[in-house]
Amino acid sequence: MASALPHADDHGAGPIAPLAVSLGDPAGIGPEVIAKAWAIRDAHRLPVFFAIGDRRSIEAVWQGPIAQISHPGAAAGVFSEALPLLQVDEPEAVTPGRPSESGARCALDSLETAVGLARSGAASGLVTGPVSKAQLYSIGFRYPGQTEFVAERCGRAAENVAMMMVGPDLRTVPVTIHCPLAKVASSLTAELIVSRTRTTVRGLQRDFGIERPRIAIAGLNPHAGEGGRIGSEELDVIAPAIATLRARGIEVEGPFSPDAMFHAPARALYDAAICMYHDQALIPLKTLYFDLGVNVTLGLPLLRTSPDHGTAFQIAGRGEANPRAMIAAIALAGQCARTRQSHPAGNA
Amino acid sequence: MASALPHADDHGAGPIAPLAVSLGDPAGIGPEVIAKAWAIRDAHRLPVFFAIGDRRSIEAVWQGPIAQISHPGAAAGVFSEALPLLQVDEPEAVTPGRPSESGARCALDSLETAVGLARSGAASGLVTGPVSKAQLYSIGFRYPGQTEFVAERCGRAAENVAMMMVGPDLRTVPVTIHCPLAKVASSLTAELIVSRTRTTVRGLQRDFGIERPRIAIAGLNPHAGEGGRIGSEELDVIAPAIATLRARGIEVEGPFSPDAMFHAPARALYDAAICMYHDQALIPLKTLYFDLGVNVTLGLPLLRTSPDHGTAFQIAGRGEANPRAMIAAIALAGQCARTRQSHPAGNA
Repeated sequence: MASALPHADDHGAGPIAPLAVSLGDPAGIGPEVIAKAWAIRDAHRLPVFFAIGDRRSIEAVWQGPIAQISHPGAAAGVFSEALPLLQVDEPEAVTPGRPSESGARCALDSLETAVGLARSGAASGLVTGPVSKAQLYSIGFRYPGQTEFVAERCGRAAENVAMMMVGPDLRTVPVTIHCPLAKVASSLTAELIVSRTRTTVRGLQRDFGIERPRIAIAGLNPHAGEGGRIGSEELDVIAPAIATLRARGIEVEGPFSPDAMFHAPARALYDAAICMYHDQALIPLKTLYFDLGVNVTLGLPLLRTSPDHGTAFQIAGRGEANPRAMIAAIALAGQCARTRQSHPAGNA
Repeated sequence: MASALPHADDHGAGPIAPLAVSLGDPAGIGPEVIAKAWAIRDAHRLPVFFAIGDRRSIEAVWQGPIAQISHPGAAAGVFSEALPLLQVDEPEAVTPGRPSESGARCALDSLETAVGLARSGAASGLVTGPVSKAQLYSIGFRYPGQTEFVAERCGRAAENVAMMMVGPDLRTVPVTIHCPLAKVASSLTAELIVSRTRTTVRGLQRDFGIERPRIAIAGLNPHAGEGGRIGSEELDVIAPAIATLRARGIEVEGPFSPDAMFHAPARALYDAAICMYHDQALIPLKTLYFDLGVNVTLGLPLLRTSPDHGTAFQIAGRGEANPRAMIAAIALAGQCARTRQSHPAGNA
């Protein structure tokens, strides 16, 4: 996929291109957590990355060294000395904690540039900083979130893409995502469950190096419906999906009682849990790993991760933002890039 | 409430009557975990309790001493030497792991007797062992579960009772309970949220000694609806309920994003979380405290707790059952009984 760049990070499986990290909204905590991640890159053995966005948004919240670069290939040469930065068109001045349309345009430029570099192979993957959907909507953005935007730029339909939430010992994938709870049951189809599960299995194989992923499928209803007494979707929708997946040779179990599949001994039995709705996937992950969750988009030709938090405008500029999730997102993107490179046959 | 029995357990706030512990289905793990709880009563400082059910169901799985008693007042005198047991009508022989109609009748007899003793004050509270709803249905039981049965025996309507799940640092109360997910949104009303919350507040005051409980109310939709973009129940149903509760002087916050209210720092901010549906309440609790969760029924004139697990027929009789949840249920019932007794004015 990526051409071997002369100074690229080398962890034994050959050099990989640097990661592209979009700063997200310049008034949010993205610039701060990305700069903080660079500052402790060695302790976390982070791979080479470069930031994309407006230099001033970092300088407003961080005193460390920044090295402006003109192309990704220059990142590795400066990474040990300074945070490499690819500048986008300068927005009007942005104040931390004060979102603006100009800042939203800058966030979108950064994302667009990062996607292009990851698509071309000049970057081995994409890590996206947090954006404000409300601000993006105000400048005409028409996607539910960054994931759908990236999917479209990659020519993928949203239903063939999956959002996997990753914590230290738990991976969850919601089948329905930003869907009102009242519409979850009617939005579920066996086809959608099969599609999300297959995308998950391919992602675990290609990017996580798990040859034969074990998949747990959650029920929808309390106690997984108790044999039809508390809802029939387990019998009518989920069981047929499981049968289809098994017929395709996928190692899948379920439907499990949703409240009895996320404690530690249960988590040890699967590589990913396929969940029927947003909070079924997000509640266990964030209850356990609130500051550590990474969102990985599966089913794209490019690698994409992001920290599972928002712009946090209310604390931007105070130096209080916790970089743990950003560090986890960068580290995971690097691991996946190396795994993907070492199994090039699996590339989409 | 309870008359002061001569040998009753004394923890400084005066003696309390013993707890009544129904064995549940005699073919399930109830008899085993109750006997095991008695065996390590001192390590856990358990209050005096007596079992109600069929002696043989304990003898089949446990070799320790059993003292048959004829009335609750005799429990305290024998508790240090043997597990006190109040025998119900003997069922046909029951084999561990093999549920039967005769066993189900025995479970129901035990429950009915235990409720009567707790109502009369001869027992200071009720701990219920696990029953098989499928078996109970086969003998004509017509309640969704033991909770609704106990509520009716106490003359309380189900909507005025609340099920609180209790773990070491988390209490959650589902507003809708055994409701198919597709019907949750249409089942939610501001009145029901207010009713469950008020029941919860009174229970926390009376049985947990929390004078001014802090209540967190969950949203229904992903990100609590994002201001109406992902569902409108937060605006139309939950916010009015919160306004009503505040007008009544209850300390309540919300609606919170359901995935951002159960990590440790968030849990520290409230005494109970009011959740909109079963798994919103149960997933965080069981993800964190699978073997420790206790179900407390609030809104009854009597105290009632139960371990949050089922009959586990598949392991009954093997000696493998974990008594942690039963121990937690007995310990919590004892604490609540002492709290309630020390604030007799709060009695319902």
